Amino acid sequence: MPGQLLETVARPVLARRFRDTRARTEKLCKPLELEDYQLQSMPDCSPPKWHLAHTAWFFETFILERREPGFRPFHPQFCYLFNSYYNAVGDRWPRPARGLLSRPTVAEIYAYRRSVDERMLSLLESIDDRELAEISPILELGMYHEEQHQELLLTDLKHAFGLNPLRPRYAPPSEAPPAQAARLEWESHPADVRWIGHDGDGFAFDNEGPRHRVFLEAFDFASRPVTNGEYLDFIADDGYSRPDLWLSDGWAAKQAVGWSAPLYWHLEGSERVSFTLRGTRPLDPAEPVCHISYYEADAYARWAGARLPTEFEWEAAVGPREVRGNFLDSERFHPGAAGGSCYGDVWVWTASPYVAYPGYRPAAGALGEYNGKFMCNQMVLRGGSCATPAAHVRLTYRNFFPPDARWQFTGLRLAKDAPA
Amino acid sequence: MPGQLLETVARPVLARRFRDTRARTEKLCKPLELEDYQLQSMPDCSPPKWHLAHTAWFFETFILERREPGFRPFHPQFCYLFNSYYNAVGDRWPRPARGLLSRPTVAEIYAYRRSVDERMLSLLESIDDRELAEISPILELGMYHEEQHQELLLTDLKHAFGLNPLRPRYAPPSEAPPAQAARLEWESHPADVRWIGHDGDGFAFDNEGPRHRVFLEAFDFASRPVTNGEYLDFIADDGYSRPDLWLSDGWAAKQAVGWSAPLYWHLEGSERVSFTLRGTRPLDPAEPVCHISYYEADAYARWAGARLPTEFEWEAAVGPREVRGNFLDSERFHPGAAGGSCYGDVWVWTASPYVAYPGYRPAAGALGEYNGKFMCNQMVLRGGSCATPAAHVRLTYRNFFPPDARWQFTGLRLAKDAPA
Amino acid sequence: MPGQLLETVARPVLARRFRDTRARTEKLCKPLELEDYQLQSMPDCSPPKWHLAHTAWFFETFILERREPGFRPFHPQFCYLFNSYYNAVGDRWPRPARGLLSRPTVAEIYAYRRSVDERMLSLLESIDDRELAEISPILELGMYHEEQHQELLLTDLKHAFGLNPLRPRYAPPSEAPPAQAARLEWESHPADVRWIGHDGDGFAFDNEGPRHRVFLEAFDFASRPVTNGEYLDFIADDGYSRPDLWLSDGWAAKQAVGWSAPLYWHLEGSERVSFTLRGTRPLDPAEPVCHISYYEADAYARWAGARLPTEFEWEAAVGPREVRGNFLDSERFHPGAAGGSCYGDVWVWTASPYVAYPGYRPAAGALGEYNGKFMCNQMVLRGGSCATPAAHVRLTYRNFFPPDARWQFTGLRLAKDAPA
Amino acid sequence: MPGQLLETVARPVLARRFRDTRARTEKLCKPLELEDYQLQSMPDCSPPKWHLAHTAWFFETFILERREPGFRPFHPQFCYLFNSYYNAVGDRWPRPARGLLSRPTVAEIYAYRRSVDERMLSLLESIDDRELAEISPILELGMYHEEQHQELLLTDLKHAFGLNPLRPRYAPPSEAPPAQAARLEWESHPADVRWIGHDGDGFAFDNEGPRHRVFLEAFDFASRPVTNGEYLDFIADDGYSRPDLWLSDGWAAKQAVGWSAPLYWHLEGSERVSFTLRGTRPLDPAEPVCHISYYEADAYARWAGARLPTEFEWEAAVGPREVRGNFLDSERFHPGAAGGSCYGDVWVWTASPYVAYPGYRPAAGALGEYNGKFMCNQMVLRGGSCATPAAHVRLTYRNFFPPDARWQFTGLRLAKDAPA
Repeated sequence: MPGQLLETVARPVLARRFRDTRARTEKLCKPLELEDYQLQSMPDCSPPKWHLAHTAWFFETFILERREPGFRPFHPQFCYLFNSYYNAVGDRWPRPARGLLSRPTVAEIYAYRRSVDERMLSLLESIDDRELAEISPILELGMYHEEQHQELLLTDLKHAFGLNPLRPRYAPPSEAPPAQAARLEWESHPADVRWIGHDGDGFAFDNEGPRHRVFLEAFDFASRPVTNGEYLDFIADDGYSRPDLWLSDGWAAKQAVGWSAPLYWHLEGSERVSFTLRGTRPLDPAEPVCHISYYEADAYARWAGARLPTEFEWEAAVGPREVRGNFLDSERFHPGAAGGSCYGDVWVWTASPYVAYPGYRPAAGALGEYNGKFMCNQMVLRGGSCATPAAHVRLTYRNFFPPDARWQFTGLRLAKDAPA
Repeated sequence: MPGQLLETVARPVLARRFRDTRARTEKLCKPLELEDYQLQSMPDCSPPKWHLAHTAWFFETFILERREPGFRPFHPQFCYLFNSYYNAVGDRWPRPARGLLSRPTVAEIYAYRRSVDERMLSLLESIDDRELAEISPILELGMYHEEQHQELLLTDLKHAFGLNPLRPRYAPPSEAPPAQAARLEWESHPADVRWIGHDGDGFAFDNEGPRHRVFLEAFDFASRPVTNGEYLDFIADDGYSRPDLWLSDGWAAKQAVGWSAPLYWHLEGSERVSFTLRGTRPLDPAEPVCHISYYEADAYARWAGARLPTEFEWEAAVGPREVRGNFLDSERFHPGAAGGSCYGDVWVWTASPYVAYPGYRPAAGALGEYNGKFMCNQMVLRGGSCATPAAHVRLTYRNFFPPDARWQFTGLRLAKDAPA
Repeated sequence: MPGQLLETVARPVLARRFRDTRARTEKLCKPLELEDYQLQSMPDCSPPKWHLAHTAWFFETFILERREPGFRPFHPQFCYLFNSYYNAVGDRWPRPARGLLSRPTVAEIYAYRRSVDERMLSLLESIDDRELAEISPILELGMYHEEQHQELLLTDLKHAFGLNPLRPRYAPPSEAPPAQAARLEWESHPADVRWIGHDGDGFAFDNEGPRHRVFLEAFDFASRPVTNGEYLDFIADDGYSRPDLWLSDGWAAKQAVGWSAPLYWHLEGSERVSFTLRGTRPLDPAEPVCHISYYEADAYARWAGARLPTEFEWEAAVGPREVRGNFLDSERFHPGAAGGSCYGDVWVWTASPYVAYPGYRPAAGALGEYNGKFMCNQMVLRGGSCATPAAHVRLTYRNFFPPDARWQFTGLRLAKDAPA
Repeated sequence: MPGQLLETVARPVLARRFRDTRARTEKLCKPLELEDYQLQSMPDCSPPKWHLAHTAWFFETFILERREPGFRPFHPQFCYLFNSYYNAVGDRWPRPARGLLSRPTVAEIYAYRRSVDERMLSLLESIDDRELAEISPILELGMYHEEQHQELLLTDLKHAFGLNPLRPRYAPPSEAPPAQAARLEWESHPADVRWIGHDGDGFAFDNEGPRHRVFLEAFDFASRPVTNGEYLDFIADDGYSRPDLWLSDGWAAKQAVGWSAPLYWHLEGSERVSFTLRGTRPLDPAEPVCHISYYEADAYARWAGARLPTEFEWEAAVGPREVRGNFLDSERFHPGAAGGSCYGDVWVWTASPYVAYPGYRPAAGALGEYNGKFMCNQMVLRGGSCATPAAHVRLTYRNFFPPDARWQFTGLRLAKDAPA
């Protein structure tokens, strides 16, 4: 009987996954000084403290509040403080001011997490099978949600550390020996109708479906990401000074901010170095170029006589491959030498604006705000990075950021129209 | 012999089309006071003077400078003043300051146009057939370019007049009797691969090709645009106060600017009126709703339980229809009652971000900047408006504006996923 | 009998002065193209058209509306359009948008002026002596007000012409031969109590009184303004690169805007030239330095081992001199060689913030807004410039502008503490 | 022999004062959570951490670096991080980003202070009398400097706590019983020449001198500050809605920010409460109104038929009184009931812009930047507040802030022109 089965198998599994996910977030905070928890270096970033609290709030709001008998919030104002963007849940503390809240303290936020964890685990034990089946999708969403914040926690921290003149390190220097980038090859794909999107088997975010057909004209797909070494050629060839290589908005952004290299690249004397979560070190030409905006990726591709793949081309080309690569789980916290894996190291910018798939319908209620309302003015990225939990990565996963964002681990992979 | 043919037929035809296009621009300025020529009411708009000069500069720069024996520019600084955005042609006067140039005077700009016209017509007569064949595509582009500025001249002027508390009129009040909107019906389209884009027969902008295949899932397409009357229902149902109906960026834009109705709608006492190029008048519920942003169009569609069509759905659905409708040539300067035509009255926002078609390559040199570099952060509109010259309208024409733009004649037409 | 006397003498005199003042404003507009009338090159400046209309509005609002039998405004919306800053009179069109009103046309504004002139002159003839005595102070204020706008009309136009790459000229080039600057001498003034401010004999603005006592410690006063030649030494000595010479706010302003020389100075090749109302010409080292901010004047004085005089020192030092100099009436429209006159050529920045004199009370009602509400964040300037009508200049006249303003004819004169 | 005397008396006294001053700063931080140390709630404020480090840097830079044998900075980058505004000392970390530095940690900054303290005390013991005499003025300046930062530490913290929705308390609620405000009386002062400024006996900042003469017309001076109760009458009489009461810049500031009451006043239901360093509590009508801008003080005075005193009137009127009042030393951290003391509780805005006294010369070198370069766009405040150390308060002390600043303990005292 399904209920029995769920009772004996799923509950402990669910509970363990819940505990593991929650623990991994806290493990990521182990290297932090208490002072680091409050850093918000730009409005797009959030303090580690806030990530810790918001991921607790998610379970409290979307599960405990709806299911826990006699529910009372841990603190009456935490919903106001730690709601991110759910209008249906009510007003919230302004995003750019998240770094201004010294209280609740870090200790209070860990206590909040403890409380939510205990009540969640207790709920998982006490509810009946029907209720468990009802909350399972939200529980699962909450864990994937927390994984997203694990990645953001690292990228936001890197941004804050990167602007501190003391250049703090998150982890000790890497001792991995330098490696070679794989040789660049081109893989041909014929024109055809392809099925795109998630087929409903296992978890996926709503924006990965419905599965639908897309016609792809013939294209060629690069065997590995663009490397720092190749990107240096673009810079040396005045890539940052030639408007003909850039989108108009990209050129304006470049001029306004003064980009002349990827984020976190610096000159120490005449040597190019790069700030990483393991400290500043010489730029490695074999690594995938990283921390570039869509505009830079697009300009590089144009300079290289190629273009960015659409997200559909990426999915079609990558489709058969196994999901493996350099993810958060490796604890390298930085891309390794550019190789043949289509996953990990760096997210790759695609040429596809982030829009709904045909037939897309967001969920009803607050959770419908999770993805759908952001389907404008952003570009899709695919593949996962060295800061993405491995369990979070999927063929159909659609990450999205505005075209001027540079603080994620973002790189590019080239594509070409097939020769006629 | 082709040369002969061109001599006897094409030259006079080309010359007449050139003269007509140039004359139409100036005819549009007939109702202006001299003071109106200098108005720039926001950075996105340009003064009528500037439109007049820039369209002359286009022919001077891209044809005369390259072909006229002993070419000397009409004025050494006009290239700096009247270049719009062509980096390859050199520096230029900042766009937001176009309204600050009282000199050259309007008379000098008309003299500039006269000079360019005469030299162009003289060139058309004097060059040999081979040269004529070479410049014809650019000449044609220049005329379509001028038609685009005819539309902008009107929409920019409407914007400037619309904020003047005296509400000047461009043309006398309309005497057309009120009409009924057509009944809304839904047309079903089955899933299929469709050919999209221009086939190369006759003129098209480079962004309309290459012709390529797109797979469309089954969809339903509305028989006419959404009307003011229907949009009033959206407003009455608190459409402007419900964040669940809006994209996140759209809600932010709405809040920042304070939108509560389409642009140019006002309240006179308790009556809704609308400012038009023929003066302020009571809002007509039968007209297509107009002067709304993409965000408003998208919110309306969500409220109505529908969605915006993609540009491919639009092109597939409209494909067989004849190009006719209420265009600039009618000199109504305002949409008429919403009917069955798929063209004219209002541009319709599509759900498609403006990106390149597969295989797209912009032209080499400065003219490659015409369309390609804007392929980011804009949405595609289709169909033409009451301010578009009829000759300018095509099935494959892709207009594009940022999602918050409201000063063009922009409305919407609904689509729906086909019932499963 | 006073009434009789007023009848036979004062009315024609008043009427003639009124006509003359009004005519002088329009004479200043004679060199303008119609297009120039609408120029507003920054929010601080107003279009010539607006100056013409606003000075008519002043008489219409503060005299005709209160005194004319059966008064009806020339146009029901002109009070909204042409009120400058009188909250007591009602709402008004936003200042930064004054250049966006192509309507009313220039012709309509001249008609407005005609109408106000005729009605004013008719009123002056028809009212009785008591009423005449009542309105005389406001009439006089209105004429001085119009003189202020004569100066602004020129300085605003210079600003707009100065940024046009065509560098239009307001008047033909000057043919005056270069002259020598007078030799700089220092005049000593002993410590003493001095009477400062207007004594009530003849017209003065309310901010020039009440007359009161100020104690001045001993000081030395320079015999002429600082010249371009001297200012070039400051520049050559890195005056614009040494923060120790600058006020903190001044340094920030300099950095933000990128000042490296006075406004209107340009380099043509390696030659320093200056844009004037009579066109661009080589910089004349003998002229008073002009178009500098308070911050630059203050930095120069510090560099020169001196300081700016307070407005009280200026008034005490200049007191006995006759009011003569290079004013608007000379129609040179530019400073002449720096000489011994304490008036004309350039306004001199004083070290005195613009605040109320002891006992100051603004008038009741709207006209109380004329001066008093601006007594914060501005610095006092003294002496009049080449753009000030001669009749407008007085020993006690207090001009005032924010410390970063550069578009008036502003220079400096040095002072020093007396040696102990 | 003076040297002997200094040896036996002054060194221990100096050392004890140094130790006390340094200890008081740290005592003020005792109630803080570690998270609070990093708060920077607006660019004008600095984090407690930064105050702690900057006041150490001051002694390290201006004394140790110049006098300590074999000086090496505690950390090579601390000069960059903790220089406030001394251009002569070099570049510095941008002020608005002071809150973004999680490193150095709080512990490291306390270690920095320990190191500076020890080296300073060791230096004080080891140098000879001549050297001691040379550094004494800078040592004294450094201690007064630190006292200024003690006050700022509290006001900055109040600002940060005040915007946190949890409204943290710095200290436990006050148990003082409510008191009555003193009765308002007017004290008359005849016209006369008065000596103003510091006479050189004991410490004073350079901007308090030279002592010089000022002529004061007769005036009346209020016997106590304006109270909350009186200010409520101003609010009830639409004081925040009547532009005729406000300076033009003040009205613009009010409209832009939306002021409708002093900072830290809130409504809880219909009750007016006020946020204090001891928590939120009902508004006490007997307390001096506090946390208002110059603009509000000025508007209130105009509404009350009075005006603000000049700083000279304040100094002349207060002159004979003893310096006593509610200062930081009372540890009330809030104003008490408005009484007759001219010192303490709240700084009072004067009508005097902050400018140099006649004969003022800043010190040579970096310390000349302490006061002089800020003499523009600020207003003088007098008298000290409940957050000012008692030892810091003097008759001639000139505090200064921009007219829109509200986060200091700022109130007002009225003056009037004497009846004629």
